[in-house]
Amino acid sequence: MKEIPKSHPRYESLMTRKKISDAMKKGFVHETGLIAHGRGEAFDYLIGEKTTAFADEAERVSAAALLCAEKPVISVNGNVVALVSKECVSLSKIIPARIEVNLFHRTEKRIKKLMKELEKDGAKNVLGLKGNTNIPSLDHNRSLCDHEGIFSADVVLVPLEDGDRCQALKNMGKTVIAIDLNPLSRTARSASITIVDNVIRALLGIEKWARLLKNEKKDDLRRLVESWDNKKMLGDVCGFISKKLNSLF
Amino acid sequence: MKEIPKSHPRYESLMTRKKISDAMKKGFVHETGLIAHGRGEAFDYLIGEKTTAFADEAERVSAAALLCAEKPVISVNGNVVALVSKECVSLSKIIPARIEVNLFHRTEKRIKKLMKELEKDGAKNVLGLKGNTNIPSLDHNRSLCDHEGIFSADVVLVPLEDGDRCQALKNMGKTVIAIDLNPLSRTARSASITIVDNVIRALLGIEKWARLLKNEKKDDLRRLVESWDNKKMLGDVCGFISKKLNSLF
Repeated sequence: MKEIPKSHPRYESLMTRKKISDAMKKGFVHETGLIAHGRGEAFDYLIGEKTTAFADEAERVSAAALLCAEKPVISVNGNVVALVSKECVSLSKIIPARIEVNLFHRTEKRIKKLMKELEKDGAKNVLGLKGNTNIPSLDHNRSLCDHEGIFSADVVLVPLEDGDRCQALKNMGKTVIAIDLNPLSRTARSASITIVDNVIRALLGIEKWARLLKNEKKDDLRRLVESWDNKKMLGDVCGFISKKLNSLF
Repeated sequence: MKEIPKSHPRYESLMTRKKISDAMKKGFVHETGLIAHGRGEAFDYLIGEKTTAFADEAERVSAAALLCAEKPVISVNGNVVALVSKECVSLSKIIPARIEVNLFHRTEKRIKKLMKELEKDGAKNVLGLKGNTNIPSLDHNRSLCDHEGIFSADVVLVPLEDGDRCQALKNMGKTVIAIDLNPLSRTARSASITIVDNVIRALLGIEKWARLLKNEKKDDLRRLVESWDNKKMLGDVCGFISKKLNSLF
């Protein structure tokens, strides 16, 4: 990272970019994953690069949903592994939840690389390689998933998911928790619980709440999840950004 | 592009992504250029993926500034060549203006590739390879430019420029025209005229206005440029996005 001077006002953001860009070179991240990272950056900038009160609450409800679940699964892709592999493994142990590698640009080679990286960070029995069943209503290559993983899960955490797939999982009757910095995206709008936060902060936030809520009664946690109004929260986030934009000039 | 189904609701946006990502594979675009493209996408989404009235006016004033200039230069980088090489060449002929390749991640190899691509699209005497002088107050590698190009230009069009460099060019007393979809970026705030528009639409917009204004009196064009209030326009764009965000939920 010699080439970026420390004097640059966006040094930290440039370092995270470097992480994603190195992950691409290692074959973890598809090149369109870099573009997706850029979209996230823009929206993170708009919310102030901090976890908002709305996101903190969504992280609390998400932790509750994962703790109540019969078969919770954390679905990961290249960007997620590049940025929060350790955090995913740690969360999967606390809940406990299975981890499944599920790629938009699916290749067996990349799935294996990501599984290996997750295992290096302590994950056991990572799913994703079988692709032995399909999520209904998606084109073939994007529909593949593991029967004992995402397909039969009741609660799925999908950090950084495509809108089509998020909607398809929701149509299957699952509780879908998405992490998406764009409150207007189809992913954000179709998920059951949307965490409008940077994936790095969001994973830590869910884990914080999972530790705090772990010994609460399941019924109380269920009530918390049932009371969640995702549309209202998305409106609140938009209002928050809107106010911020208006105050700047 | 077999892998993206035509049925995908964001098919067109995915195709433009493919263009940038192919340009990276050809060595035109640095990988962080993909991330920058993603940031642009996010803001384009917020303005509605159309040229706003504010951007159209900025394109008009930019055309006037370029037509009045003694030594106008269009500064291009990898993303610009990947998306609007032909449009830059066409605009350079109408003004007329010189084109200089100027890279944030500068390598001679990439400069040569981009020069070749521009020449393929009809450009003559593209600058950028000499790097025989420095823009003051920038780290060495980022400061290099050609003496007969950017360094001595009075008006510089910098589509997709870094904030530091934009500010440094402004400090040299130049009229700096930036194209930046993020109205809050340091580039947008430090330029003399900021076009908050997609670079593909912006280049066509400037060219449209250059054709219309080409035969106007220079004094009238100068008055138009002098009357431009960039800060007010940025505030107006933020207000526009803010209103849109508020109306969505």
